[in-house]
Amino acid sequence: MPTDLEIARAATLKPIRDIAAKAGIPEEALEPYGKYKAKVGLDFIASLEGRPDGALVLVTGINPTPAGEGKTTTTVGLGDALNAIGMKAMIALREPSLGPCFGVKGGATGGGYAQVLPMEDINLHFTGDFHAITSANNLLAAMLDNHVYWGNALGLDARRISWRRALDMNDRALRSVVSSLGGVANGFPREDGFDITVASEVMAVFCLARDLADLQARLGRMIVGQTREGRNVTAADLKADGAMAVLLRDAFAPNLVQTIEGSPALVHGGPFANIAHGCNSVMATRLALKLSDVVVTEAGFGADLGAEKFLDIKCRQAGLKPAACVVVATVRALKMNGGVAKADLAREDVAAVKRGVVNLARHVENIGKFGIPVVVGLNRFTTDTPAEIEAVRAAMRALGTEAILCTHWGDGARGAVDLAHAVRAMIEAGKADFAPLYTDHVSLAGKIETIAREIYRAASVSIPASVAARLKRFEEQGFRDLPVCIAKTQYSFSADPTKLGAPEGHVLPVREVRLSAGAGFVVAVCGDIMTMPGLPRVPAAEGIRLDAGGRIEGLF
Amino acid sequence: MPTDLEIARAATLKPIRDIAAKAGIPEEALEPYGKYKAKVGLDFIASLEGRPDGALVLVTGINPTPAGEGKTTTTVGLGDALNAIGMKAMIALREPSLGPCFGVKGGATGGGYAQVLPMEDINLHFTGDFHAITSANNLLAAMLDNHVYWGNALGLDARRISWRRALDMNDRALRSVVSSLGGVANGFPREDGFDITVASEVMAVFCLARDLADLQARLGRMIVGQTREGRNVTAADLKADGAMAVLLRDAFAPNLVQTIEGSPALVHGGPFANIAHGCNSVMATRLALKLSDVVVTEAGFGADLGAEKFLDIKCRQAGLKPAACVVVATVRALKMNGGVAKADLAREDVAAVKRGVVNLARHVENIGKFGIPVVVGLNRFTTDTPAEIEAVRAAMRALGTEAILCTHWGDGARGAVDLAHAVRAMIEAGKADFAPLYTDHVSLAGKIETIAREIYRAASVSIPASVAARLKRFEEQGFRDLPVCIAKTQYSFSADPTKLGAPEGHVLPVREVRLSAGAGFVVAVCGDIMTMPGLPRVPAAEGIRLDAGGRIEGLF
Repeated sequence: MPTDLEIARAATLKPIRDIAAKAGIPEEALEPYGKYKAKVGLDFIASLEGRPDGALVLVTGINPTPAGEGKTTTTVGLGDALNAIGMKAMIALREPSLGPCFGVKGGATGGGYAQVLPMEDINLHFTGDFHAITSANNLLAAMLDNHVYWGNALGLDARRISWRRALDMNDRALRSVVSSLGGVANGFPREDGFDITVASEVMAVFCLARDLADLQARLGRMIVGQTREGRNVTAADLKADGAMAVLLRDAFAPNLVQTIEGSPALVHGGPFANIAHGCNSVMATRLALKLSDVVVTEAGFGADLGAEKFLDIKCRQAGLKPAACVVVATVRALKMNGGVAKADLAREDVAAVKRGVVNLARHVENIGKFGIPVVVGLNRFTTDTPAEIEAVRAAMRALGTEAILCTHWGDGARGAVDLAHAVRAMIEAGKADFAPLYTDHVSLAGKIETIAREIYRAASVSIPASVAARLKRFEEQGFRDLPVCIAKTQYSFSADPTKLGAPEGHVLPVREVRLSAGAGFVVAVCGDIMTMPGLPRVPAAEGIRLDAGGRIEGLF
Repeated sequence: MPTDLEIARAATLKPIRDIAAKAGIPEEALEPYGKYKAKVGLDFIASLEGRPDGALVLVTGINPTPAGEGKTTTTVGLGDALNAIGMKAMIALREPSLGPCFGVKGGATGGGYAQVLPMEDINLHFTGDFHAITSANNLLAAMLDNHVYWGNALGLDARRISWRRALDMNDRALRSVVSSLGGVANGFPREDGFDITVASEVMAVFCLARDLADLQARLGRMIVGQTREGRNVTAADLKADGAMAVLLRDAFAPNLVQTIEGSPALVHGGPFANIAHGCNSVMATRLALKLSDVVVTEAGFGADLGAEKFLDIKCRQAGLKPAACVVVATVRALKMNGGVAKADLAREDVAAVKRGVVNLARHVENIGKFGIPVVVGLNRFTTDTPAEIEAVRAAMRALGTEAILCTHWGDGARGAVDLAHAVRAMIEAGKADFAPLYTDHVSLAGKIETIAREIYRAASVSIPASVAARLKRFEEQGFRDLPVCIAKTQYSFSADPTKLGAPEGHVLPVREVRLSAGAGFVVAVCGDIMTMPGLPRVPAAEGIRLDAGGRIEGLF
């Protein structure tokens, strides 16, 4: 089997205007970025307002393990297969972050014969969206410190500044810094720090805004810190919202690319799935829904984090109603959930599959609580045995659903045709009756408790008095109706990454809460949360270079 | 008279492929970025290698004053006028930095009817080149700190790390920081800081490299710091050069745009004219020379800094031989050099013009020392009187050259036709016999002394013993043959910004020297030098926003 990069380079791409034409986007509505990428104009998107929406299908997964599950691959493969069986399908994905490319080798554009292309471009600068977001984030930071420097008329308390700078880079040295050193000309020294761009609230705002006016308004609502009296200071108070929106304007148009099999894909926005909601932009999803019968999209991490946020935050805010959900699993990953070490995954172990399948079963059950029909996409590896596969199938039959074998990684669209038929049947049956897990009117603490009970199956939630007081303050300030965005480990239903399978009776510890007033959610931090990754001992970057012909070596 | 922005928005742009076709660039060689910007493919550029070069014309100026001179405007107007009189002309300019856009209102794409378009795009993210340079710069910084974090096998001395991080932002709070705070997981705390991207050595390398292989090799030679024993540690030692080159690969292709009158313009790269050499990329200049009869290009600040570096650094390294030079001046700016305050510039003051014209005269003389014929472009303002203009003309006649009135700002190409004829005559006369001011073999101190004596007319150079020792060390390390890049105030021939006109007999104080081994020059810092600007009390950003139709307000 050739590598992902070899497959990507061997593919013959169609001009992006041909892909656009197939999707119903006229050439005048395109802003090309090279021959194979284009932004879709906002005026064209606005002109589609009256059209009916296609069906929305969410691809999510079990809790991730080092074995790999293939969520992006399944999203792409399913989209291709839906097109292959005669539906008009589009794919909506997140843009990859540049920083991680130089850490651990690998991209984020699918794999095998289920990739979006051009993969090198998408994994590197792509159309510059993340750079625009970085610039907007840092303009606000510069204006904030500049405001303090020139007299601090708003009375910002340097100790209460919460706005952080951002870079799309894995750089632990910037997590915690003291800035404005060096004397009078450089400002007032203060504690400061950088997050990776995808963790910035600007990214979340970018992905949740419905149009440019909403984008500018949300940017203005973002809170940068407090005065000594505890009054919030916003980006609008600093008059930074307009210039930030100007920096984001071009980026805000969704990016059109294609899969190896020529399906149109919108790849746009990429918020972290911990501190933010972890799915592509509302702009891209809504555009795709206007243009197709069915849109296949993906949410980050496992269904406990990714799907829950997709449904309770994104779908709630954007008025989206998913028609079906695919939960992705692999026999290997279920064996890890059943206690098998990574080195032993090649050996048949039906008992381990049976122990581990509880993780999958719980995710399937959970999705049902949102009123969405579910099917399981079981990504086949060559080492999977018939008995192992049957163990998964039986467990799913017992839940009233199906586990469908997929081989799109090696076979492209035809490897996901069975899954596509199952998804089509669910859409056509029209059984979905989506409702978020909680209503707007529940208290913030009540929302956290609902998620902990219904999704994580925790026995209780531990909220320290200081955190409870902060939640109360948010409610008094008018933010009671916001949804909550849980930041916890992706490896377990609990806040303990070592508790695999389907733990119950644990306590969810809420360490800290943060208000993202522009994005429109309250972040509840449960356990440690990393908003600026570091590089490993031997970063992938060391092996990346241009060969004599100017081609990239070592990136994937 | 409409504003620059109104003129730019009223202009009808031609599709960039039509501009390319006029310039002899086939559509297959273009990577479009929207409809009106494109990158020109490196393979196409390589295919032109055997072609003869057109004539290279440098536009430079007197020492800048708050009155404004119009160097970029003249570069654009002259290019348009050369096309208008039947030569095949191209323009090569620097890309503007994003940071300053949000400080003091105004762009850097010319003005009036002599602009490059689309001006909003070019002044904002353009094709993302500066973002790529920022990323490459910061990847090296992250890899450096990561190397120290994981054991510091190269033995970098934290006190001797000279590599700084970069952002394309005016942000004084980042000039001086302490990074890697917060405990074991975040590394070893050290003094650190950020420069604006245009001041980074990566930008200088990007602009001086001849091809991708040269780019990667230069990146590898960049010095990031020293060991405790004083041994240089380079980007190649950190194995960062390849990944940096990968980040820069797409950006390295020159950007094609158009003037209001439809002339092709390459806008590519933009190094600071203080710490670096201040002119557009060698890639763009060389490409333009292959495609046209005449290339009009510009160098930053006055001729003492900009032209000297263009000639002694860029032309030396790239083997370029300018055919003619235009020194830009205005009556208003000469009056300021003659001691008139900005508020009084509207009043006729022939005596002040005569006092101030010495500044212009010395620049004209200086260019002659490089063996290049000179003409003066006198940008006309409505307040200029015939007697004032005649004073300039007479002074130039006395030097054996001409001052030619230009009105391209208000009139477009026809306002610079006289200047174009003069330039054409100089080119056709073939009198240019370019040689740099000094040979490679002069000592580094000797090179600084030569520039100080011949260009600045200083009586002497003051080099403290510590600086002299450092220069000696650079020479011992094999860098004796490099040119020097003087960083000093742009406002005076001397290092004192208040000494206008044509000061003589001053002392040039060399405060510090830095080795830019990748760019291939030694920076001699004379006086204070700012590598990260701040924002003013009321930043332009406060007035910038999107209107209800999504258009940009307040940027220019």
